[in-house]
Amino acid sequence: MKIAVFGTGMVGKTIADKIHSLGEPVTMGTRSMEKTMAADEGDHDGNPPFSAWIAEREGIRLATYLDAAAVADLVFLALPGEVVLEVLKQIGPAALAGKIIIDLTNPLDFSNGMPPTLSIVNDDSLGERVQAALPESRVVKTLNSVTASLMVSPGALADGDHSMFMAGNDTGAKAEVEKVLRGWFGWKDIIDLGDIGQARGMEMYLPLWLRLWGAAGNANFNIKIVR
Amino acid sequence: MKIAVFGTGMVGKTIADKIHSLGEPVTMGTRSMEKTMAADEGDHDGNPPFSAWIAEREGIRLATYLDAAAVADLVFLALPGEVVLEVLKQIGPAALAGKIIIDLTNPLDFSNGMPPTLSIVNDDSLGERVQAALPESRVVKTLNSVTASLMVSPGALADGDHSMFMAGNDTGAKAEVEKVLRGWFGWKDIIDLGDIGQARGMEMYLPLWLRLWGAAGNANFNIKIVR
Repeated sequence: MKIAVFGTGMVGKTIADKIHSLGEPVTMGTRSMEKTMAADEGDHDGNPPFSAWIAEREGIRLATYLDAAAVADLVFLALPGEVVLEVLKQIGPAALAGKIIIDLTNPLDFSNGMPPTLSIVNDDSLGERVQAALPESRVVKTLNSVTASLMVSPGALADGDHSMFMAGNDTGAKAEVEKVLRGWFGWKDIIDLGDIGQARGMEMYLPLWLRLWGAAGNANFNIKIVR
Repeated sequence: MKIAVFGTGMVGKTIADKIHSLGEPVTMGTRSMEKTMAADEGDHDGNPPFSAWIAEREGIRLATYLDAAAVADLVFLALPGEVVLEVLKQIGPAALAGKIIIDLTNPLDFSNGMPPTLSIVNDDSLGERVQAALPESRVVKTLNSVTASLMVSPGALADGDHSMFMAGNDTGAKAEVEKVLRGWFGWKDIIDLGDIGQARGMEMYLPLWLRLWGAAGNANFNIKIVR
Protein backbone atom coordinates (compact mmCIF):
# COMPACT_ATOMS: atom_id res chain seq x y z
CA MET A 1 0.00 0.00 0.00
CA LYS A 2 1.51 3.30 -1.11
CA ILE A 3 0.75 6.24 1.12
CA ALA A 4 0.41 9.95 0.48
CA VAL A 5 -0.17 12.56 3.13
CA PHE A 6 -1.75 15.82 2.03
CA GLY A 7 -0.59 18.63 4.27
CA THR A 8 2.80 19.55 5.67
CA GLY A 9 1.73 20.92 9.04
CA MET A 10 2.05 19.30 12.43
CA VAL A 11 -0.54 16.60 11.72
CA GLY A 12 0.85 15.74 8.30
CA LYS A 13 4.39 15.54 9.63
CA THR A 14 3.32 13.33 12.53
CA ILE A 15 1.59 10.86 10.24
CA ALA A 16 4.35 10.83 7.63
CA ASP A 17 6.98 10.40 10.31
CA LYS A 18 5.19 7.39 11.77
CA ILE A 19 4.82 5.67 8.40
CA HIS A 20 8.41 6.47 7.57
CA SER A 21 9.50 4.98 10.91
CA LEU A 22 7.82 1.72 9.87
CA GLY A 23 10.05 1.57 6.79
CA GLU A 24 7.22 2.41 4.40
CA PRO A 25 7.73 5.03 1.71
CA VAL A 26 5.50 8.07 1.99
CA THR A 27 4.90 11.06 -0.24
CA MET A 28 3.76 14.34 1.25
CA GLY A 29 1.58 16.50 -0.95
CA THR A 30 1.56 20.27 -0.88
CA ARG A 31 0.19 23.12 -2.97
CA SER A 32 3.58 24.63 -3.75
CA MET A 33 6.78 22.69 -3.17
CA GLU A 34 8.74 25.90 -3.50
CA LYS A 35 6.81 27.70 -0.81
CA THR A 36 6.84 24.73 1.54
CA MET A 37 10.61 24.30 1.20
CA ALA A 38 11.27 28.04 1.41
CA ALA A 39 9.30 28.62 4.61
CA ASP A 40 11.95 29.50 7.14
CA GLU A 41 9.85 29.41 10.30
CA GLY A 42 9.19 26.35 12.40
CA ASP A 43 5.97 25.61 14.23
CA HIS A 44 4.62 26.88 17.56
CA ASP A 45 6.40 24.12 19.46
CA GLY A 46 9.86 25.19 18.37
CA ASN A 47 10.28 22.51 15.72
CA PRO A 48 12.50 23.29 12.72
CA PRO A 49 11.27 24.57 9.34
CA PHE A 50 9.85 21.93 6.99
CA SER A 51 12.95 21.83 4.79
CA ALA A 52 15.17 20.92 7.75
CA TRP A 53 12.63 18.38 9.00
CA ILE A 54 12.33 16.52 5.69
CA ALA A 55 16.09 16.64 5.04
CA GLU A 56 16.51 14.26 7.98
CA ARG A 57 14.00 11.74 6.63
CA GLU A 58 15.21 9.95 3.53
CA GLY A 59 12.09 7.90 2.93
CA ILE A 60 9.78 10.91 2.83
CA ARG A 61 9.35 12.66 -0.48
CA LEU A 62 7.69 16.03 -1.08
CA ALA A 63 5.53 16.47 -4.16
CA THR A 64 2.63 18.51 -5.45
CA TYR A 65 -0.80 17.24 -4.49
CA LEU A 66 -1.28 15.88 -7.99
CA ASP A 67 2.05 14.07 -8.11
CA ALA A 68 1.55 12.70 -4.61
CA ALA A 69 -1.92 11.46 -5.55
CA ALA A 70 -0.60 9.76 -8.66
CA VAL A 71 1.67 7.40 -6.75
CA ALA A 72 -0.66 6.66 -3.82
CA ASP A 73 -3.24 3.98 -3.04
CA LEU A 74 -4.22 5.67 0.21
CA VAL A 75 -4.23 9.39 0.96
CA PHE A 76 -4.42 11.01 4.40
CA LEU A 77 -6.13 14.41 4.30
CA ALA A 78 -4.08 16.12 6.99
CA LEU A 79 -5.40 19.55 6.10
CA PRO A 80 -7.27 22.24 8.02
CA GLY A 81 -11.01 21.81 7.71
CA GLU A 82 -11.34 25.30 6.25
CA VAL A 83 -9.24 24.48 3.19
CA VAL A 84 -9.72 20.79 2.46
CA LEU A 85 -12.65 21.16 0.05
CA GLU A 86 -10.88 23.89 -1.89
CA VAL A 87 -7.75 21.74 -2.19
CA LEU A 88 -9.81 18.78 -3.42
CA LYS A 89 -11.55 20.99 -5.96
CA GLN A 90 -8.20 22.24 -7.19
CA ILE A 91 -6.83 18.71 -7.57
CA GLY A 92 -10.01 17.41 -9.15
CA PRO A 93 -11.74 14.11 -8.41
CA ALA A 94 -10.14 12.19 -11.29
CA ALA A 95 -6.69 12.28 -9.69
CA LEU A 96 -8.07 10.52 -6.61
CA ALA A 97 -10.55 8.15 -8.28
CA GLY A 98 -10.51 4.63 -6.83
CA LYS A 99 -8.17 5.58 -4.02
CA ILE A 100 -8.80 5.25 -0.32
CA ILE A 101 -9.06 8.67 1.32
CA ILE A 102 -8.66 8.96 5.08
CA ASP A 103 -10.51 12.10 6.10
CA LEU A 104 -9.28 13.23 9.49
CA THR A 105 -10.44 16.83 9.12
CA ASN A 106 -12.83 18.76 11.34
CA PRO A 107 -15.09 21.64 10.25
CA LEU A 108 -13.67 24.01 12.84
CA ASP A 109 -14.53 27.69 12.52
CA PHE A 110 -12.07 29.91 14.37
CA SER A 111 -13.61 33.17 13.16
CA ASN A 112 -15.51 33.73 16.42
CA GLY A 113 -12.60 33.10 18.76
CA MET A 114 -11.82 30.17 21.01
CA PRO A 115 -13.02 27.55 21.36
CA PRO A 116 -13.88 27.22 17.67
CA THR A 117 -17.43 26.38 16.62
CA LEU A 118 -18.40 23.95 13.85
CA SER A 119 -19.19 25.28 10.39
CA ILE A 120 -21.17 22.14 9.51
CA VAL A 121 -23.58 20.41 11.90
CA ASN A 122 -26.64 18.22 12.24
CA ASP A 123 -27.74 17.17 8.74
CA ASP A 124 -24.38 17.30 6.98
CA SER A 125 -20.71 16.81 7.77
CA LEU A 126 -17.32 17.57 6.33
CA GLY A 127 -16.86 13.83 5.80
CA GLU A 128 -19.90 13.76 3.55
CA ARG A 129 -18.72 16.83 1.66
CA VAL A 130 -15.32 15.23 1.08
CA GLN A 131 -17.06 12.12 -0.26
CA ALA A 132 -19.30 14.28 -2.45
CA ALA A 133 -16.26 16.16 -3.79
CA LEU A 134 -14.60 12.82 -4.63
CA PRO A 135 -17.46 10.64 -5.84
CA GLU A 136 -15.14 7.99 -7.28
CA SER A 137 -12.95 7.78 -4.18
CA ARG A 138 -13.43 5.57 -1.16
CA VAL A 139 -13.59 8.01 1.75
CA VAL A 140 -13.21 6.81 5.33
CA LYS A 141 -13.63 9.27 8.19
CA THR A 142 -11.40 8.45 11.15
CA LEU A 143 -8.71 9.84 13.47
CA ASN A 144 -10.43 13.24 13.76
CA SER A 145 -11.13 12.73 17.47
CA VAL A 146 -7.59 12.74 18.90
CA THR A 147 -4.50 14.90 18.87
CA ALA A 148 -1.90 14.10 16.19
CA SER A 149 0.54 12.16 18.35
CA LEU A 150 -2.23 9.82 19.54
CA MET A 151 -3.48 9.24 15.99
CA VAL A 152 -0.36 7.27 15.17
CA SER A 153 0.71 6.13 18.66
CA PRO A 154 -2.39 5.27 20.70
CA GLY A 155 -0.28 2.93 22.80
CA ALA A 156 1.46 5.94 24.33
CA LEU A 157 -1.71 6.53 26.38
CA ALA A 158 -2.95 3.85 28.81
CA ASP A 159 -1.36 1.12 26.71
CA GLY A 160 -3.87 1.92 23.94
CA ASP A 161 -6.94 1.10 26.02
CA HIS A 162 -9.22 3.67 24.35
CA SER A 163 -11.39 3.89 21.26
CA MET A 164 -11.33 5.09 17.66
CA PHE A 165 -14.29 5.49 15.31
CA MET A 166 -14.63 5.11 11.57
CA ALA A 167 -17.36 5.81 9.05
CA GLY A 168 -17.52 5.31 5.30
CA ASN A 169 -19.60 3.89 2.49
CA ASP A 170 -17.04 1.37 1.21
CA THR A 171 -16.67 -1.74 3.34
CA GLY A 172 -13.49 -2.82 1.59
CA ALA A 173 -11.89 0.56 2.16
CA LYS A 174 -12.80 0.43 5.83
CA ALA A 175 -11.14 -2.98 6.10
CA GLU A 176 -7.95 -1.57 4.57
CA VAL A 177 -8.03 1.47 6.85
CA GLU A 178 -8.55 -0.79 9.84
CA LYS A 179 -5.36 -2.66 8.85
CA VAL A 180 -3.46 0.63 8.91
CA LEU A 181 -4.98 1.76 12.20
CA ARG A 182 -4.51 -1.57 13.90
CA GLY A 183 -1.36 -2.95 12.27
CA TRP A 184 0.67 0.19 11.72
CA PHE A 185 -0.53 2.56 14.42
CA GLY A 186 -1.64 0.13 17.14
CA TRP A 187 -5.33 0.94 17.62
CA LYS A 188 -7.05 -1.89 19.47
CA ASP A 189 -10.67 -0.73 19.71
CA ILE A 190 -12.01 0.53 16.37
CA ILE A 191 -15.76 1.10 16.17
CA ASP A 192 -17.36 1.16 12.73
CA LEU A 193 -20.29 3.57 13.01
CA GLY A 194 -21.60 2.87 9.51
CA ASP A 195 -21.80 4.94 6.35
CA ILE A 196 -20.14 8.32 5.81
CA GLY A 197 -23.24 10.07 7.19
CA GLN A 198 -22.17 8.88 10.64
CA ALA A 199 -19.28 11.34 10.37
CA ARG A 200 -21.83 13.85 11.70
CA GLY A 201 -21.54 12.31 15.15
CA MET A 202 -17.76 12.04 14.94
CA GLU A 203 -17.38 15.71 14.07
CA MET A 204 -19.96 16.99 16.56
CA TYR A 205 -17.91 15.38 19.32
CA LEU A 206 -15.24 18.03 18.77
CA PRO A 207 -16.87 20.73 20.93
CA LEU A 208 -16.69 18.31 23.87
CA TRP A 209 -13.10 17.40 22.96
CA LEU A 210 -12.15 21.08 22.95
CA ARG A 211 -13.61 21.54 26.45
CA LEU A 212 -11.96 18.42 27.77
CA TRP A 213 -8.72 19.84 26.40
CA GLY A 214 -9.40 23.06 28.27
CA ALA A 215 -10.21 21.23 31.51
CA ALA A 216 -7.23 18.88 31.25
CA GLY A 217 -4.74 21.49 30.12
CA ASN A 218 -3.31 19.18 27.50
CA ALA A 219 -4.47 17.15 24.50
CA ASN A 220 -3.04 13.81 25.57
CA PHE A 221 -6.40 12.17 26.26
CA ASN A 222 -9.03 10.18 24.45
CA ILE A 223 -12.34 8.51 25.14
CA LYS A 224 -12.85 4.83 25.69
CA ILE A 225 -16.26 3.44 24.94
CA VAL A 226 -17.10 1.37 27.99
CA ARG A 227 -19.77 -1.22 27.17
CA MET B 1 -31.31 17.95 51.02
CA LYS B 2 -34.89 17.72 49.77
CA ILE B 3 -35.29 16.50 46.22
CA ALA B 4 -37.86 17.16 43.54
CA VAL B 5 -37.92 15.51 40.15
CA PHE B 6 -39.74 17.34 37.37
CA GLY B 7 -41.12 14.85 34.89
CA THR B 8 -42.93 11.53 35.32
CA GLY B 9 -41.54 9.69 32.31
CA MET B 10 -38.95 6.96 32.25
CA VAL B 11 -36.06 9.23 33.26
CA GLY B 12 -38.00 10.91 36.07
CA LYS B 13 -39.17 7.57 37.44
CA THR B 14 -35.66 6.13 37.32
CA ILE B 15 -34.20 9.05 39.28
CA ALA B 16 -37.05 9.19 41.79
CA ASP B 17 -36.87 5.43 42.31
CA LYS B 18 -33.17 5.56 43.05
CA ILE B 19 -33.51 8.37 45.59
CA HIS B 20 -36.48 6.60 47.16
CA SER B 21 -34.42 3.38 47.41
CA LEU B 22 -31.85 5.33 49.45
CA GLY B 23 -34.55 6.17 51.99
CA GLU B 24 -34.71 9.82 50.95
CA PRO B 25 -38.09 11.47 50.38
CA VAL B 26 -38.69 12.69 46.85
CA THR B 27 -41.46 14.72 45.26
CA MET B 28 -42.23 14.31 41.59
CA GLY B 29 -43.55 17.38 39.83
CA THR B 30 -46.00 17.27 36.95
CA ARG B 31 -48.15 19.71 35.02
CA SER B 32 -51.45 18.04 35.93
CA MET B 33 -51.65 15.51 38.73
CA GLU B 34 -55.05 14.41 37.48
CA LYS B 35 -53.80 13.63 33.99
CA THR B 36 -50.66 11.92 35.23
CA MET B 37 -52.66 9.69 37.60
CA ALA B 38 -55.41 9.01 35.04
CA ALA B 39 -53.07 7.90 32.24
CA ASP B 40 -53.88 4.25 31.85
CA GLU B 41 -51.06 3.25 29.50
CA GLY B 42 -47.61 2.17 30.57
CA ASP B 43 -44.42 2.92 28.69
CA HIS B 44 -42.85 1.26 25.65
CA ASP B 45 -41.06 -1.28 27.80
CA GLY B 46 -44.25 -2.76 29.23
CA ASN B 47 -44.01 -1.00 32.57
CA PRO B 48 -47.28 -0.21 34.39
CA PRO B 49 -49.12 3.13 34.25
CA PHE B 50 -47.75 5.85 36.52
CA SER B 51 -50.54 5.48 39.09
CA ALA B 52 -49.69 1.81 39.63
CA TRP B 53 -45.97 2.57 39.73
CA ILE B 54 -46.23 5.27 42.39
CA ALA B 55 -48.73 3.30 44.47
CA GLU B 56 -45.93 0.83 45.22
CA ARG B 57 -43.54 3.54 46.42
CA GLU B 58 -44.59 5.11 49.69
CA GLY B 59 -41.80 7.65 49.92
CA ILE B 60 -42.55 9.21 46.52
CA ARG B 61 -45.12 11.97 46.41
CA LEU B 62 -46.71 13.45 43.30
CA ALA B 63 -47.35 17.19 43.21
CA THR B 64 -47.73 20.04 40.76
CA TYR B 65 -44.48 21.58 39.56
CA LEU B 66 -45.09 24.57 41.85
CA ASP B 67 -45.80 22.48 44.93
CA ALA B 68 -42.86 20.19 44.21
CA ALA B 69 -40.58 23.21 43.79
CA ALA B 70 -41.76 24.71 47.07
CA VAL B 71 -40.49 21.79 49.16
CA ALA B 72 -37.23 21.13 47.30
CA ASP B 73 -33.66 22.29 47.68
CA LEU B 74 -32.58 20.48 44.53
CA VAL B 75 -34.66 19.87 41.40
CA PHE B 76 -33.88 17.39 38.62
CA LEU B 77 -35.22 18.55 35.25
CA ALA B 78 -36.15 15.14 33.84
CA LEU B 79 -38.13 16.62 30.99
CA PRO B 80 -37.89 16.38 27.21
CA GLY B 81 -35.67 19.09 25.77
CA GLU B 82 -38.54 20.33 23.63
CA VAL B 83 -40.71 21.28 26.60
CA VAL B 84 -38.36 22.19 29.44
CA LEU B 85 -38.20 25.93 28.72
CA GLU B 86 -41.96 26.18 28.38
CA VAL B 87 -42.42 24.38 31.71
CA LEU B 88 -39.96 26.70 33.42
CA LYS B 89 -41.72 29.72 31.98
CA GLN B 90 -45.04 28.42 33.26
CA ILE B 91 -43.65 27.85 36.75
CA GLY B 92 -41.82 31.14 36.80
CA PRO B 93 -38.30 31.79 38.09
CA ALA B 94 -39.38 32.93 41.57
CA ALA B 95 -40.53 29.43 42.55
CA LEU B 96 -37.05 28.06 41.85
CA ALA B 97 -34.95 31.00 43.10
CA GLY B 98 -31.94 29.94 45.15
CA LYS B 99 -32.45 26.27 44.42
CA ILE B 100 -30.02 23.91 42.77
CA ILE B 101 -31.30 22.79 39.36
CA ILE B 102 -29.82 19.70 37.74
CA ASP B 103 -30.35 20.11 34.01
CA LEU B 104 -30.08 16.73 32.33
CA THR B 105 -32.00 17.72 29.21
CA ASN B 106 -30.81 17.59 25.61
CA PRO B 107 -32.00 19.87 22.78
CA LEU B 108 -33.05 16.95 20.61
CA ASP B 109 -35.15 17.69 17.54
CA PHE B 110 -37.08 14.65 16.32
CA SER B 111 -38.95 16.52 13.61
CA ASN B 112 -36.64 15.31 10.85
CA GLY B 113 -36.67 11.64 11.78
CA MET B 114 -34.04 9.48 13.42
CA PRO B 115 -31.46 10.04 14.63
CA PRO B 116 -32.62 13.40 16.01
CA THR B 117 -30.61 16.55 15.33
CA LEU B 118 -29.86 19.30 17.83
CA SER B 119 -32.05 22.41 17.91
CA ILE B 120 -29.32 24.43 19.65
CA VAL B 121 -25.62 24.25 18.72
CA ASN B 122 -22.31 26.04 18.67
CA ASP B 123 -22.77 29.42 20.39
CA ASP B 124 -25.61 28.52 22.75
CA SER B 125 -26.94 25.51 24.64
CA LEU B 126 -30.06 24.35 26.38
CA GLY B 127 -28.13 24.48 29.65
CA GLU B 128 -27.49 28.19 29.13
CA ARG B 129 -31.13 28.79 28.22
CA VAL B 130 -32.27 27.01 31.38
CA GLN B 131 -29.92 29.22 33.42
CA ALA B 132 -31.20 32.31 31.60
CA ALA B 133 -34.80 31.27 32.29
CA LEU B 134 -33.95 30.86 35.99
CA PRO B 135 -31.51 33.69 36.71
CA GLU B 136 -31.79 33.29 40.50
CA SER B 137 -31.31 29.51 40.42
CA ARG B 138 -28.06 27.57 40.55
CA VAL B 139 -28.12 25.47 37.38
CA VAL B 140 -25.74 22.54 36.95
CA LYS B 141 -25.69 20.63 33.68
CA THR B 142 -24.90 16.95 34.15
CA LEU B 143 -26.16 13.41 33.48
CA ASN B 144 -27.29 14.28 29.93
CA SER B 145 -24.71 11.96 28.37
CA VAL B 146 -25.97 8.55 29.55
CA THR B 147 -29.14 6.49 29.50
CA ALA B 148 -31.41 6.82 32.55
CA SER B 149 -30.39 3.61 34.31
CA LEU B 150 -26.72 4.58 34.17
CA MET B 151 -27.41 8.09 35.49
CA VAL B 152 -28.28 6.66 38.89
CA SER B 153 -26.36 3.37 38.80
CA PRO B 154 -23.03 3.88 37.00
CA GLY B 155 -21.62 0.94 38.95
CA ALA B 156 -23.79 -1.40 36.89
CA LEU B 157 -21.38 -0.85 33.98
CA ALA B 158 -17.70 -1.82 34.33
CA ASP B 159 -17.86 -1.24 38.07
CA GLY B 160 -18.36 2.48 37.41
CA ASP B 161 -15.07 2.95 35.58
CA HIS B 162 -16.33 5.67 33.22
CA SER B 163 -16.80 9.44 33.28
CA MET B 164 -19.45 12.07 33.94
CA PHE B 165 -19.24 15.79 33.15
CA MET B 166 -20.68 18.83 34.86
CA ALA B 167 -20.91 22.51 34.03
CA GLY B 168 -22.36 25.43 35.94
CA ASN B 169 -21.68 28.95 37.16
CA ASP B 170 -22.10 28.26 40.88
CA THR B 171 -19.17 26.46 42.48
CA GLY B 172 -21.11 25.69 45.65
CA ALA B 173 -23.96 24.16 43.67
CA LYS B 174 -21.50 21.99 41.73
CA ALA B 175 -20.04 20.75 45.02
CA GLU B 176 -23.54 19.77 46.23
CA VAL B 177 -24.33 18.06 42.93
CA GLU B 178 -21.06 16.20 43.09
CA LYS B 179 -22.09 14.86 46.51
CA VAL B 180 -25.31 13.52 44.99
CA LEU B 181 -23.55 12.03 41.97
CA ARG B 182 -20.77 10.49 44.00
CA GLY B 183 -22.43 9.66 47.31
CA TRP B 184 -25.92 8.69 46.21
CA PHE B 185 -25.44 7.42 42.66
CA GLY B 186 -21.86 6.13 42.76
CA TRP B 187 -20.10 8.20 40.10
CA LYS B 188 -16.33 7.99 40.56
CA ASP B 189 -14.94 10.18 37.77
CA ILE B 190 -16.70 13.55 37.57
CA ILE B 191 -15.09 16.17 35.34
CA ASP B 192 -15.97 19.81 35.96
CA LEU B 193 -15.79 21.51 32.56
CA GLY B 194 -16.36 25.00 33.93
CA ASP B 195 -19.21 27.47 33.60
CA ILE B 196 -22.63 26.73 32.14
CA GLY B 197 -21.37 27.72 28.68
CA GLN B 198 -19.45 24.45 28.63
CA ALA B 199 -22.81 22.69 28.34
CA ARG B 200 -22.37 23.35 24.61
CA GLY B 201 -19.79 20.58 24.44
CA MET B 202 -21.82 18.23 26.64
CA GLU B 203 -24.89 18.59 24.44
CA MET B 204 -23.04 18.40 21.12
CA TYR B 205 -21.73 15.00 22.19
CA LEU B 206 -25.25 13.61 21.77
CA PRO B 207 -25.02 13.02 18.00
CA LEU B 208 -22.05 10.73 18.67
CA TRP B 209 -23.91 9.06 21.54
CA LEU B 210 -26.87 8.38 19.26
CA ARG B 211 -24.61 6.71 16.68
CA LEU B 212 -22.80 4.67 19.29
CA TRP B 213 -26.23 3.56 20.46
CA GLY B 214 -27.04 2.53 16.89
CA ALA B 215 -23.76 0.67 16.48
CA ALA B 216 -23.99 -1.08 19.86
CA GLY B 217 -27.69 -1.92 19.62
CA ASN B 218 -28.28 -0.84 23.20
CA ALA B 219 -27.80 2.22 25.41
CA ASN B 220 -25.85 0.52 28.18
CA PHE B 221 -22.56 2.25 27.44
CA ASN B 222 -20.68 5.38 28.38
CA ILE B 223 -17.38 7.06 27.67
CA LYS B 224 -14.40 7.05 29.95
CA ILE B 225 -11.95 9.89 29.59
CA VAL B 226 -8.57 8.18 29.42
CA ARG B 227 -5.81 10.59 30.40
